[in-house]
Amino acid sequence: MEAEYDVIIIGGGAAGLSAAIYATRAQLKTLIVEQLAPGGQILNTSDIENYPGFPDGVLGPDIGVAMHKQAENTGTLFAFDTVIDLHVDEDVKVVVGEEREYTAKTIIVTAGGAHNKLGVPGEDEFAGRGVTYCATCDGNFFAGEDTVVVGGGDAAIDEGMYLSRIVRSLTLVHRRDELRATKVLQERAFATDNFNFKFSHVVKEIRGNGGVDRVLLEDVKSGEEYEYPTAAVFIYIGFHPNSGFLQGKVPLDNGGHVITDIRMQTDVPGVFAAGDIRQFSDRQLGTSVGDGITAALSAYRYITEG
Amino acid sequence: MEAEYDVIIIGGGAAGLSAAIYATRAQLKTLIVEQLAPGGQILNTSDIENYPGFPDGVLGPDIGVAMHKQAENTGTLFAFDTVIDLHVDEDVKVVVGEEREYTAKTIIVTAGGAHNKLGVPGEDEFAGRGVTYCATCDGNFFAGEDTVVVGGGDAAIDEGMYLSRIVRSLTLVHRRDELRATKVLQERAFATDNFNFKFSHVVKEIRGNGGVDRVLLEDVKSGEEYEYPTAAVFIYIGFHPNSGFLQGKVPLDNGGHVITDIRMQTDVPGVFAAGDIRQFSDRQLGTSVGDGITAALSAYRYITEG
Repeated sequence: MEAEYDVIIIGGGAAGLSAAIYATRAQLKTLIVEQLAPGGQILNTSDIENYPGFPDGVLGPDIGVAMHKQAENTGTLFAFDTVIDLHVDEDVKVVVGEEREYTAKTIIVTAGGAHNKLGVPGEDEFAGRGVTYCATCDGNFFAGEDTVVVGGGDAAIDEGMYLSRIVRSLTLVHRRDELRATKVLQERAFATDNFNFKFSHVVKEIRGNGGVDRVLLEDVKSGEEYEYPTAAVFIYIGFHPNSGFLQGKVPLDNGGHVITDIRMQTDVPGVFAAGDIRQFSDRQLGTSVGDGITAALSAYRYITEG
Repeated sequence: MEAEYDVIIIGGGAAGLSAAIYATRAQLKTLIVEQLAPGGQILNTSDIENYPGFPDGVLGPDIGVAMHKQAENTGTLFAFDTVIDLHVDEDVKVVVGEEREYTAKTIIVTAGGAHNKLGVPGEDEFAGRGVTYCATCDGNFFAGEDTVVVGGGDAAIDEGMYLSRIVRSLTLVHRRDELRATKVLQERAFATDNFNFKFSHVVKEIRGNGGVDRVLLEDVKSGEEYEYPTAAVFIYIGFHPNSGFLQGKVPLDNGGHVITDIRMQTDVPGVFAAGDIRQFSDRQLGTSVGDGITAALSAYRYITEG
């Protein structure tokens, strides 16, 4: 069996698009299989100040579109499909999508991760009606209203800062008594007038009537519970790698991340991983870009050097 | 002894500037020690088409300046000095420069590499008077003239393409009978009218009178030697890591590259490496950026987690 593609990249985020730019420039026939819009996590990010080369910052959606265009310009092919299985034991690898099967000499897995859920009553019920995991996507629906953000890391603060320019107020609910976020971000949040904090608090339930109108909070130090009015709950409590379809195919760590060496090679010949899905990824735009390039050049060497 | 800095970054190229952006945003007091202008190898590159985020390409010097500005904006400090030694056995590390000594809790080595020399008569004699390793820097001195480029890799073709827009002609002299460069680059060179090739040839000597006016070539298949007129010799035959000062301080491989794990940690606690100087680097702008970010976040964890 002849492979249709030299490289199939599973996932069209920053790692996948970067891999595609390098693979196509090396004259490899390259397909990205993506289930949503190319761009990945960066589409959910507003101002990006730490991607080297943009001293005045860049908007996540803008650089997502730029990378997509760059990959298209170099000849990357795209399929919109959801990958459900892989066959990686033979020289010709098979990527099984919901729509069809695809074959390639190499696979680069850049499937990223998905947001963790709170797991409280009302979260699923009000999804899309006040419960959201993406301020960039949904913030404008709550212009001028009071909102709640859950989390204490960079994502919670980043998205909270974005929200603060749109909403009347936001209250960050965090179960610990201090933030995990980078200090420079913390300081910015503390200096923002409509950015409020409820430390040592958790959301126990999301309540409403048609849409969210309040949450049930618990003060974890006193045990006190009380309702708190809000038009929306933005949840940023981490995410998990999208590696379910890799179980039993490629070695994963306990957290479900793909184990690679420094050249992004997995234990399976011809299968590489890059970006947020790999073990020890710092999950930054710039590190995903570096990973993707490294994976593509490793795939190029695997193909051309045999 | 109290360390003056949280992080000292040795080298101000893409890896070093990227590390600095992340280190300073993490509120770490960060010094870059650089012997030339910040920007590194990218300053010697013309059009960069493969740095993700710039679909229309970007000029090397432009993005070098942008990254320098971005690192300055975030509060990076700079010292212009040449590092000649390190003391890394204690918690407080000492970086010994020609000008003075600097102390820090962590060191990130991003010293890059230097161009290999041909090692032929006339190369040193005519350095800066027709012999050069940087078309971006020196190409304009030879506008409208006939020139020679030595090498067969990406750098030779990249710089040859840059030169081709300035000079009357260039002749690429390569000792093998085919190029090592990426195919897309090769094809572009083959399609460029004033881009000529002498395969299976070597430069035996560089000759002139005040400045270069010819080279002595050898056809390695026939053994024939003959003079060939040229106003300049641009040499791109690889480079070696700038790791002399690391001998005996940090484990190096046989090629002089610093050995790191996937988090850019060396065997020495608190000492990290990133970019072209590390083992298995793909020596791309995007991979140096990723490396630098990873190294900075590893240094941050080393400092804050103890």
